[in-house]
Amino acid sequence: MTIRPRLGELGLSTGKKARLHRILHGHGLGNGTALFLPYDQGLEHGPRDFFANPAASDPRYIVKLATEGGFNGIAIQIGLAEKFYWDYAGEVPLVLKLNGKTEIPSDAQALSPVNASVADAVRLGADAVGYTLYVGTPVQDRDFEQLKSVRQDAHRYGMPLVVWAYPRGAAIDAKGGKDSFYAVDYAARTASELGADVVKVNFPHPERRAGVPKEYDAEFSGQQAVDAVVRSANRTLVLISGGEKAGDEVMLEKARESMEAGATGIIFGRNVWQRAHDDSLRLVAQLREILSKYPSG
Amino acid sequence: MTIRPRLGELGLSTGKKARLHRILHGHGLGNGTALFLPYDQGLEHGPRDFFANPAASDPRYIVKLATEGGFNGIAIQIGLAEKFYWDYAGEVPLVLKLNGKTEIPSDAQALSPVNASVADAVRLGADAVGYTLYVGTPVQDRDFEQLKSVRQDAHRYGMPLVVWAYPRGAAIDAKGGKDSFYAVDYAARTASELGADVVKVNFPHPERRAGVPKEYDAEFSGQQAVDAVVRSANRTLVLISGGEKAGDEVMLEKARESMEAGATGIIFGRNVWQRAHDDSLRLVAQLREILSKYPSG
Amino acid sequence: MTIRPRLGELGLSTGKKARLHRILHGHGLGNGTALFLPYDQGLEHGPRDFFANPAASDPRYIVKLATEGGFNGIAIQIGLAEKFYWDYAGEVPLVLKLNGKTEIPSDAQALSPVNASVADAVRLGADAVGYTLYVGTPVQDRDFEQLKSVRQDAHRYGMPLVVWAYPRGAAIDAKGGKDSFYAVDYAARTASELGADVVKVNFPHPERRAGVPKEYDAEFSGQQAVDAVVRSANRTLVLISGGEKAGDEVMLEKARESMEAGATGIIFGRNVWQRAHDDSLRLVAQLREILSKYPSG
Amino acid sequence: MTIRPRLGELGLSTGKKARLHRILHGHGLGNGTALFLPYDQGLEHGPRDFFANPAASDPRYIVKLATEGGFNGIAIQIGLAEKFYWDYAGEVPLVLKLNGKTEIPSDAQALSPVNASVADAVRLGADAVGYTLYVGTPVQDRDFEQLKSVRQDAHRYGMPLVVWAYPRGAAIDAKGGKDSFYAVDYAARTASELGADVVKVNFPHPERRAGVPKEYDAEFSGQQAVDAVVRSANRTLVLISGGEKAGDEVMLEKARESMEAGATGIIFGRNVWQRAHDDSLRLVAQLREILSKYPSG
Amino acid sequence: MTIRPRLGELGLSTGKKARLHRILHGHGLGNGTALFLPYDQGLEHGPRDFFANPAASDPRYIVKLATEGGFNGIAIQIGLAEKFYWDYAGEVPLVLKLNGKTEIPSDAQALSPVNASVADAVRLGADAVGYTLYVGTPVQDRDFEQLKSVRQDAHRYGMPLVVWAYPRGAAIDAKGGKDSFYAVDYAARTASELGADVVKVNFPHPERRAGVPKEYDAEFSGQQAVDAVVRSANRTLVLISGGEKAGDEVMLEKARESMEAGATGIIFGRNVWQRAHDDSLRLVAQLREILSKYPSG
Repeated sequence: MTIRPRLGELGLSTGKKARLHRILHGHGLGNGTALFLPYDQGLEHGPRDFFANPAASDPRYIVKLATEGGFNGIAIQIGLAEKFYWDYAGEVPLVLKLNGKTEIPSDAQALSPVNASVADAVRLGADAVGYTLYVGTPVQDRDFEQLKSVRQDAHRYGMPLVVWAYPRGAAIDAKGGKDSFYAVDYAARTASELGADVVKVNFPHPERRAGVPKEYDAEFSGQQAVDAVVRSANRTLVLISGGEKAGDEVMLEKARESMEAGATGIIFGRNVWQRAHDDSLRLVAQLREILSKYPSG
Repeated sequence: MTIRPRLGELGLSTGKKARLHRILHGHGLGNGTALFLPYDQGLEHGPRDFFANPAASDPRYIVKLATEGGFNGIAIQIGLAEKFYWDYAGEVPLVLKLNGKTEIPSDAQALSPVNASVADAVRLGADAVGYTLYVGTPVQDRDFEQLKSVRQDAHRYGMPLVVWAYPRGAAIDAKGGKDSFYAVDYAARTASELGADVVKVNFPHPERRAGVPKEYDAEFSGQQAVDAVVRSANRTLVLISGGEKAGDEVMLEKARESMEAGATGIIFGRNVWQRAHDDSLRLVAQLREILSKYPSG
Repeated sequence: MTIRPRLGELGLSTGKKARLHRILHGHGLGNGTALFLPYDQGLEHGPRDFFANPAASDPRYIVKLATEGGFNGIAIQIGLAEKFYWDYAGEVPLVLKLNGKTEIPSDAQALSPVNASVADAVRLGADAVGYTLYVGTPVQDRDFEQLKSVRQDAHRYGMPLVVWAYPRGAAIDAKGGKDSFYAVDYAARTASELGADVVKVNFPHPERRAGVPKEYDAEFSGQQAVDAVVRSANRTLVLISGGEKAGDEVMLEKARESMEAGATGIIFGRNVWQRAHDDSLRLVAQLREILSKYPSG
Repeated sequence: MTIRPRLGELGLSTGKKARLHRILHGHGLGNGTALFLPYDQGLEHGPRDFFANPAASDPRYIVKLATEGGFNGIAIQIGLAEKFYWDYAGEVPLVLKLNGKTEIPSDAQALSPVNASVADAVRLGADAVGYTLYVGTPVQDRDFEQLKSVRQDAHRYGMPLVVWAYPRGAAIDAKGGKDSFYAVDYAARTASELGADVVKVNFPHPERRAGVPKEYDAEFSGQQAVDAVVRSANRTLVLISGGEKAGDEVMLEKARESMEAGATGIIFGRNVWQRAHDDSLRLVAQLREILSKYPSG
Repeated sequence: MTIRPRLGELGLSTGKKARLHRILHGHGLGNGTALFLPYDQGLEHGPRDFFANPAASDPRYIVKLATEGGFNGIAIQIGLAEKFYWDYAGEVPLVLKLNGKTEIPSDAQALSPVNASVADAVRLGADAVGYTLYVGTPVQDRDFEQLKSVRQDAHRYGMPLVVWAYPRGAAIDAKGGKDSFYAVDYAARTASELGADVVKVNFPHPERRAGVPKEYDAEFSGQQAVDAVVRSANRTLVLISGGEKAGDEVMLEKARESMEAGATGIIFGRNVWQRAHDDSLRLVAQLREILSKYPSG
């Protein structure tokens, strides 16, 4: 088990530490762990993600849910932040997602264009910004350049930078795929090297070994893999994401393993809001129960 | 039926609210609905669109028609705005269309380059700016970046941003086409997530189901589809466009269904001016009759 | 016959009106018409254009000819303007051509890169700037963006903007070609929509109908075609260009038809200087004779 | 044997000389030679490079090793510099590596995007910046432009510029490959011509002659080749890199030949930290022994 | 024979005239002619160009040679200028070459990226800047844009702009090749039109007629061709380059013909330094002998 890094040893500037402290200790359980609610699927996948629970199509419903559920933050795009965050401003931290794309065109050259600035985030009272980095695509160079610009603005404003580190592209597909231990481990490290304060990754799948480098072509348990991923992220706080809706037990087990590995928190969207309101809150209670066992400094 | 959002709950800045109020309550019926006259077809399709009614080739004729017909705004490109809006400045609101393209080259990588700025719009006394976003093309990333820049300028100047949200490209063609319920629904949501204040979409065709995601591969009425599109746009005001000239009865029925769904207004160009002057005004009267039944706050 | 638009009704800023007035009323016939001498062929086609009359290779010969012939302006690139305009500065208006290219590489993605700024034009005492817009190419989006930047600078400095509107590219070739009525008509309109003050087009050829949209696939006389083109340009002053050297009678007839249609003037280069000096002046006299019959306000 | 250039004859600005003096005379052996520890492999190759010695995955371990081993500097990316350099700031010079990429996508158009600025380096108290230049790729033009911008910033801040000069791309593969004498010699010269203060190259392999220009298609010893490379770099200080982990004897021999040729130092990463801690320090002691024989002014 | 243009009639700004006067009248023969030493081959061709005379690999040797030989200027890249010009600063004028590339990747899309600025040249006390323009490539548009930026900076600082005008690309290969009369003539004119103060071209080969436009498909002597090229450059001073090392007699004859045609000087690199030191000075003496016969105002 890796020890979860404390805020005081991350080399953070004053503004970043103040905002991360507010997120981790002023909201949610207030014990240094984090539960985030991402709601950018209306852009990433389109309204079809809301057919399972039509109420979730309404951003007001989601922001309210984040408040009721005691989340540490909600991650939304600029349009929804301007139109809906006002109602609950201050009640739940805002993570302004700065880039995004639709799923319509091919993912071969996946790049998530920036649609809002860190200055927009400051203006809206956000406590962090989010950036999706596609690791390993043929246009990775443009992605790194975009991220540089966002990182520098985040530094200037003392705004914590959360990187959604997603392996993508034909080369990734040929080396175990986007959820392989190899890909997730590399993505976590890349985000750390490029200056993320927090990194969001998918739970690694060590059994996806077709085409991975020889070092990863061996037997690893899920716990061993997620331990390694958190180590690769070193002093970058780790959030494990839920991805597509799955069975609750599997998901809760992964949450437990992630926290055991030293992750700071979890970030579940569709698994939370693609179900009825009360059922959502029931699941959130279970997740909080897990987080409560891993207090951090 | 969705309730039409009121100006007061959209999270608008003072300048945006002042200008949208002027458009919705100071012109046209003054009841919170809107009837817009778009006149960018000379660029988008070329002068051939004026052969049906040669008088319509003259921008002066069109601006005068917008005034006579009691429109809430006229949408034109910078060149015509500079040369012709002066004559009627203040009599009808100007929506300066900031981008556009000709129909000559292939639409495969459709991108509508910006040819005027929000500052140009301010200088000309415009009450809104228009931007065409092609959702789903292979160059969607450049489109999003352009829109970001326009959105930020519109924010700086307090200028309402109307997004023409048009699905385009091979991937759209393969998933039901540009007028499918899926495509129009996704386009409306995309505009809302990216920060449009108003979105212009085509009327959705739920019967176009070839290749659409499974959620859309079911029986929906036109009314159900347009209801969903307006819901997806949430706090973004919706304008339904007319597209190519069609039969009046079909068109009026779609206008009724759109307003019933919670749209704020309609934006008809060729259907209005590709006919004789008096006939245009007769149609406009019928449209106003419909709008008069859906006052909004 | 279309009425030629007067300077007072074009919506011009003070600086643009002052400079256009100087060109149209302070030089040439001084009757509101214009005869321009373009001399960018050394760049566009190379020195081969001067083999017919080697003296024309010397820019000094050409600037002198413009003065002797009583032209309303001479259009040249920055290099020649800096080296040769000084000699005759103030004697004949300078139209600084801001972009250009060689004919060497393929025209498939034709784009004329900007090589001088409007500020360069101001510094050199120019009375207008020229920009070549290739309408309909696959890189039309970059062309529009370039033009936007030039247009905004021209606005800032009160400098009239003359757009060389040239249809180009495979899609144009497939729809009647670059001199078809369809292509020229669309190009004139495009320049007007994008903010040209003056547009230079080739004389339209209504008989080139292979592949044109159905509206243009009918019998039109040359006069009808050029009438329509001038109408499409609406409040943008029209200059008809001469193109390759042709028979004098044909050319003079086209000049007459153009003026009859409401064009403001003609812009002839190779037809003027690809002949001996005295012969050039003889032709110019004939052109002035035609222009003298179409005074404008 | 080439004479190692002295700091005083390199044409350095005051700030650059002060910082290089600190690196070469204030750290390590303090005799004008240099031993650098590069640690950007977590980004360039991913965490797999740490499987041989898992402790090396932790940047804290590496920075400590650099201090213990008496290195003249450690080269890391911005993320690790912000998170880990603080602990040992001032104890070992920081070379902030300004660009980098993952090994995942194809190297055919290799370009290492900039992810940090010289200003970032100044802020972090760095004594030099590092830039990877891929010499000979199809996108070499973009690489040169990036380097220009970095060089100009480095000049403005008086920050020494270390160029990782790496031949890459299909044309290099066809002309002897990236480690051929031809390729390494050309790369060293390119860095010098473009303004590097220090250049890092691989040890040249004169036996790789397939496809090289005729001048290089002859018998050269390794010593002759490295002599020539250092001559080509002229007044640019040369660092020879270790590349993949190899046998210690071979490596030490190359270090000796490099110093004999006039190199200023060596830069070994994986060869140093892909082994147990004490073994690392033992190797470092051997390298220092070599460097101690080549003091420089 | 064309008359060589005098400095006073070129339309030069004060600063440009001062610097060109210093080059042409304060150095070399001081009679208005020029002999330049280009030394960018280490970048353009790599160190292989120095194998014929290894001493020439050392930039110090070359700068000294320029001083000893009484050259009017030496053209080098930023890296060498910073490291070696200091030793002889003021003794021989510096032409800072602002762009350059390696010969490694394919020349099909040849573009020489800018690696230094006019401001760098000012800082180093240069008397001119050099820019390589590849005329006729598929990326000519980017080249023209780069040149525009350099030209504007050169204007701002009063720095003479020397354009290396080199025809390149598949279209040139298909029309007589890069040394054909057609290609060289067009290149000289292009540089003049785009604002060069001085243009460097290769000696034209009128016998290369395969595929050239009909005007050039005739019998011309070398003298006739170079006469025409100098005429096409009009008020742009012409330098004829030596290219690859050739027989001295042929070369001296071309130098004579060039000066006879009205060229201002010659620029010989490899022909000068790819031989022993004394032999270089002997050749230089012969070249000076020729130049002494063509004094200019």
